[in-house]
Amino acid sequence: MKVALLGPEGTYTHQAAASYFEDLETDYCSTIRDVFNSDTEVKFVPVENSLGGGVSDTVELLKSGDDTVTAEVRLQIQHALISDEDSIEDIERIKSHPQALSQCQNLIEEHGWEKEETGSTAAAVEQLEEGEAALASEIAAEINDKNILETSVQDTDSNITRFFVLNGDPEPEEKTALVLEPGEDRPGLLHAMLSCFAGHQVNLTHIQSRPTKRKLGEYYFYVEADAAGEKLQDTIDCLETYAEVQNLGSFSVLGDET
Amino acid sequence: MKVALLGPEGTYTHQAAASYFEDLETDYCSTIRDVFNSDTEVKFVPVENSLGGGVSDTVELLKSGDDTVTAEVRLQIQHALISDEDSIEDIERIKSHPQALSQCQNLIEEHGWEKEETGSTAAAVEQLEEGEAALASEIAAEINDKNILETSVQDTDSNITRFFVLNGDPEPEEKTALVLEPGEDRPGLLHAMLSCFAGHQVNLTHIQSRPTKRKLGEYYFYVEADAAGEKLQDTIDCLETYAEVQNLGSFSVLGDET
Repeated sequence: MKVALLGPEGTYTHQAAASYFEDLETDYCSTIRDVFNSDTEVKFVPVENSLGGGVSDTVELLKSGDDTVTAEVRLQIQHALISDEDSIEDIERIKSHPQALSQCQNLIEEHGWEKEETGSTAAAVEQLEEGEAALASEIAAEINDKNILETSVQDTDSNITRFFVLNGDPEPEEKTALVLEPGEDRPGLLHAMLSCFAGHQVNLTHIQSRPTKRKLGEYYFYVEADAAGEKLQDTIDCLETYAEVQNLGSFSVLGDET
Repeated sequence: MKVALLGPEGTYTHQAAASYFEDLETDYCSTIRDVFNSDTEVKFVPVENSLGGGVSDTVELLKSGDDTVTAEVRLQIQHALISDEDSIEDIERIKSHPQALSQCQNLIEEHGWEKEETGSTAAAVEQLEEGEAALASEIAAEINDKNILETSVQDTDSNITRFFVLNGDPEPEEKTALVLEPGEDRPGLLHAMLSCFAGHQVNLTHIQSRPTKRKLGEYYFYVEADAAGEKLQDTIDCLETYAEVQNLGSFSVLGDET
């Protein structure tokens, strides 16, 4: 299936997409906005991301567009140490995306390596020079025919990134992503809106406020509810008495530790 | 004053810090984690950021450390087109941080420039070659002695980044940052906690849920309340009946459009 996603080849986005789609045919884009603007119907975007931005761009582009969320894919981020060298002893410099460097501080400090920042983890592998290593996905090492000197070198193992599939095949639905836009702000308004979830016994698994950008201090809320379909309809009807409600789609959750 | 902040010199973080601190003496760090670990007492970190990550690292490091928020600084991000060339006609390639490239798509498409991603906007200016331009802050052009071909080239003007000053001089306090950690999850729990804000007529200006990383599906909430000091004490007492409450500090808001 042809899918628009954030490039270059070999990023964690690529790895996560390859785990979800059979016969993945990639349409690489250089920004999340480009993914949303792509003519390719099915898209794959980070929504809660610890590497390389994502969540705020994705939420805003979901809100302003008409794509439908059809699945959530989770990936445990595990950085590999990748090089042209054969031995870790020959490494003097380490390069990667700033957040990957930040997540592997123990290893870097232990060896006293010089650090260099790149625009993506995959770009670090492509730009490897003598005496250098990169922190990136194992798929990036394979693609670029480099050596993996060590796997899973990050400081902690709790680093999970969530992705959304947009406009994909329907799956059994467990969760729903909503935008709530009250159009005013007063103390207690969020509390009032959440009474709909509490009253109908629907759990929230994610909430964030975002500025509307129309007026300073005016917010909308991006929420994910642990329900879909008929089970959520009363909640949505209740929410509509307080705010404009945009249903971004219902989806199942797939991947690591779900 | 000596301040730890995200480098390199010439990023928007640098520009925002220079607008707040008189006699700024910089201690540049390469990641947000390094800023928090710096021996320099006063720190300056992005908290709601549209460029180069920030918010999730900052919230987690505030939660796990003992730094105190003392001010919020806002900066309207305006990208300048920076080059060694004298004329926009001589540009064939544009380089910058992926999010800056994404925010200047109209200009880039109009000229059909090739794009190259860098780890920061400032790095793009440092790495300029013949026929290239960078998207970065005006301060980056000054520092590197480059030409500014055009100012404010971003697609829209609504791009404001918020920064926190940590451990700075006390100021009149308007807002308070809190972490609420309920230690359990059940439908209606967030609604119950927010009843404290609603009941005591305190407005929330920001909310986000974050995974605790201890257990999948367990969350804590990062909130900013539009009150401080005695006016917030009853609310905090009320919140403590539902959750562990961590007060990250009270602060005033300074900068663009506040």
